[in-house]
Formats: sequence, C-alpha cells, structure tokens
Amino acid sequence: MKPLRSLINGRAEAQLSVTSRLHYGDGVFATVAIQDGQPLLWPEHGRRLAAGGERLGLDPVDAVTLQAEAEGLAADVGLAILKVVLVRGAGGRGYRPEAAPTDRILTLWPWPSASRFKEGAPVFWCETRLARQPLLAGIKHLNRLEQVLAQREFTDPYWEGLMRDTQDWVIEGTMTNLFVVERGVLTTPILDQAGVAGVMRERVVMRARELGLDVRFDRLTKDRVMTADEVFLCNSVIGTRPVLDLGCGSRRRGPITAMIEKVLRGGRDAVDL
Amino acid sequence: MKPLRSLINGRAEAQLSVTSRLHYGDGVFATVAIQDGQPLLWPEHGRRLAAGGERLGLDPVDAVTLQAEAEGLAADVGLAILKVVLVRGAGGRGYRPEAAPTDRILTLWPWPSASRFKEGAPVFWCETRLARQPLLAGIKHLNRLEQVLAQREFTDPYWEGLMRDTQDWVIEGTMTNLFVVERGVLTTPILDQAGVAGVMRERVVMRARELGLDVRFDRLTKDRVMTADEVFLCNSVIGTRPVLDLGCGSRRRGPITAMIEKVLRGGRDAVDL
Repeated sequence: MKPLRSLINGRAEAQLSVTSRLHYGDGVFATVAIQDGQPLLWPEHGRRLAAGGERLGLDPVDAVTLQAEAEGLAADVGLAILKVVLVRGAGGRGYRPEAAPTDRILTLWPWPSASRFKEGAPVFWCETRLARQPLLAGIKHLNRLEQVLAQREFTDPYWEGLMRDTQDWVIEGTMTNLFVVERGVLTTPILDQAGVAGVMRERVVMRARELGLDVRFDRLTKDRVMTADEVFLCNSVIGTRPVLDLGCGSRRRGPITAMIEKVLRGGRDAVDL
Repeated sequence: MKPLRSLINGRAEAQLSVTSRLHYGDGVFATVAIQDGQPLLWPEHGRRLAAGGERLGLDPVDAVTLQAEAEGLAADVGLAILKVVLVRGAGGRGYRPEAAPTDRILTLWPWPSASRFKEGAPVFWCETRLARQPLLAGIKHLNRLEQVLAQREFTDPYWEGLMRDTQDWVIEGTMTNLFVVERGVLTTPILDQAGVAGVMRERVVMRARELGLDVRFDRLTKDRVMTADEVFLCNSVIGTRPVLDLGCGSRRRGPITAMIEKVLRGGRDAVDL
C-alpha cells in the first residue's frame, strides 16, 4: 500500500535521502484523522509534536508552516489519515546530532475500510513487555520495535493487543491508550515509565471531566483490567472502542464508554461515521 | 556529509521510499571497516545481521547477495566505512508487519580523519540510562534514541560516553563495547538486558582467550570500572582504544590492552594504520 500523497519538507516527493536519521528512529510522529478536509485535533497534535521534539532536542519546526502543510495535504479529502513525522536533520554518519533543520515528512493514507469491530473488539494480552525508560516515556517517538514485536504476537480475531511493562503494569495497547471504568470512576495508566500519552487519551480525560466524571491516573494490574466494569481503548483514528473480550468472557459496551463516545463524536474530536 | 556511494536493494540509489519501515526503526545494522577493498570481519558482521534479523522476524536476506553487494561497494576503496542496514519490507501504514522482502541499504562513508585519541581517550559518564529490554538486548537494531540522547550529553574533549542501565550497571559506550582488566583478568559486561554485543567485542574475547587470558562476562558497577587496572573500548572502526581518563585522574595504556591491540591489528581484525 502506498500513501495517496506525500510532502517532504514542503515538496511533493515520495523519496527520502538515504542519510535520513530515520536510521536511528531519531524523531517523533503523529497520526491524524482527516474529515472533510480538516485535520481533527490539530492544535493538540501540533503541540504534542513540538513537545516530543523538544524532549529529544530537535530543531523546532515552525508551527504555522507545519499546519499549512497538513491542511494543504488534506484540503480536498473526505476521510483520510495523515501521518506527520519529524526527524532530526541529517548530518554525517554516527549518532551525534549536528545542527540541521528538522525534516518534515507528511503522508496521506486512505481511511481504513469499515471495521467489524466498530461496536467493540476482542483484545489480546501481549507477552512483549515495554521497557521502562522515563526519558522517552509519554512521547510518540520513532523507536517502535516493541510495538512491532507485540503486533507480531496476535492476529485475527484480535483487533489489538494490550501491553505491560517489564514490571507487569498494564500500560496501553500497541496503537491505543487504555481506560477502565470501576464503579463510575475512569482510570488510565500513568505513563511516566513507558507508553505514549496520546492526543485522544488527553481529550477523553477532558471530556469525561466536563461530564462530571471522576478521572484518575494510576498503575493498573492485569487483574484490575480484567475485572473492571468497562474497558475501552482510544486513539485519533478510532476515537474510542469498547473492549468486548479480554480472554475472560464477553463484555458489553458500558454506559460510560457510550457516553464518552457520543461526546467525542459530537464535539468533532473523533470522526463521526 | 554524504556517503561516497550507496546501494539500495542492489541498485545504485541514494533515495528511500517514504514508506520505509525505518519509520519504526524496524531493522538491524552493521558498521564495517573497509581496508584495501575488503570488508573486515565480514563473516562475523553477516552472521550478526542475520541473527539480529531473525530475532526481529525479518524476512531472511540471502547471505551471498549481501556479501557480493558489500564487496562490490568496497572493491576499489583503500580505507572506508561501510554501513549495512536491513529493514523489514514495507507494507502499508501501521506497526503490523506484512510479508515483504527485507530492504538492504548499504552506504559507503569516508574513513574518519586521524584521531588525536588514537593512543587513548577521555571518556564521559553519561546520565542517560539504557532501558532494560531483554527482547532487544544484544542486537544492533535501529532503535537508537538512547544513544542519540547520550551523545548529546558530552562534547570535546570527551571522545566517548559510558552508559549504565536503569539499574546502574555499566553496559557499554554509546558506540563501543567496554572491557576492564583487573589483576590480569579481562571482563566485559553481560548484555542480556541492554547493550549491543558488537563484533569486535566477540573478536577481543576470542583473541584474548587465544593469548591464554582469563576472560569473563559479569555485571560491572561504576566503581569497579573506575578502579580497574586497565579500561578499554572497542568497535569495528577503531579496533580497541584505551580509556585514559574516567573523571578520576589520568591513566596509561596498560600492557594487556597493548597486547590485544597488537594481536587484532596483526590478525586483520581491525584496521592497521
């Protein structure tokens, strides 16, 4: 599969230099839903790209330029996915960064075909553990071998896999963030040692608090996830998705999950199909 | 700086597809010294690339093809550095691997100018810690953000930085493996939780044992490295290099380090300048 179009440092190209520091995964990225020509949650994606780049010490990217490029690529598109990658500018061979402007790689991809898991998905418990690395925790950087290895563990009928860290705390899905509902309280894992603090996770927290719900950040065990009243996953493409099977019998979409889904779609935080 | 030449899947090109799975750091690499048109320690590099690829589940690369490409690129070169990168073949967007042949990216780089540290180097203690991830420990994969962050910590006059893991065990340099000599015994860190098991490290162990030395694998504390009789670093480009300053006063190249250097150069394991 090829992207519909791509833009590298503002030019309509589909080729990267062989010297790109993608060779070290030296950058950050965002996956953005496009609806009716608009990148959803763009301010949040832009802020997160900038914050991740700052953590890694990338040369800052002009926010106006990046937004114009994102909007330009998405302009006449109904539904699509925009991937934005910022890579430290290339110098010579070797790990040491040299002063060079950050590369901007934008690609536009077809929206996935309708999922049979729209109403909820069976989810796998991955054995691949996330390493604990506070320096990289939270940011959506390009060192993603753990997620690749985890995705190799499961296949149909599982839609997603849940990952724990090397101390067995449940952190997230391979491509989603996790929420559990227990007696009306919403909890999502603390991501100070591992995991990606996704834009949709942040938005769910905000919308849930607007609804008057109690939202907490905590360390979650597998047992606690298994016995929660409701479990759902989220990211910028799917919005939210209920977890209907965690290997311990089937569940139904719960009332709080449904309430949050409705608010996100109504608020144009997530694609409303 | 640009490579002297490059070869992508056998073609003389300098551009990569924007869909490359370099976006996830999904592959392995090797840095090979070229002397008089010959890639040094090629069998060892080839084996390690294959073993690393197998750990990640890459589609196997034909060893004869890869060797021919490496030798072809190096054929008329006196001294140079060959970087060989194997990347999982691209599918669509997303972490999940699809069945696709592994991409081979070979680049040839100028040999670095003579180092003023040839006789030994001052070395920095990095604060950036290596995460403990047994699934990736030992292999030279492309997820190298930790090394990039560590290299940002130091500059001249330091030539290299030593890295510890998140449990404070000393693991390696950012681009080198570490050996200490204590009462005639050679020790290098165990790399089952973090670190890259470099080709030159393996060769040093072999040559030291041929010399009748006692070689051990162990967990090393910073204190133990600081108080060792001799400390040296190694990789495929430098061979070995004595550590002359670890922040606790200057040292001199020790007799065992000198003996190993001599054997490596004599055996064409390392470039003999």
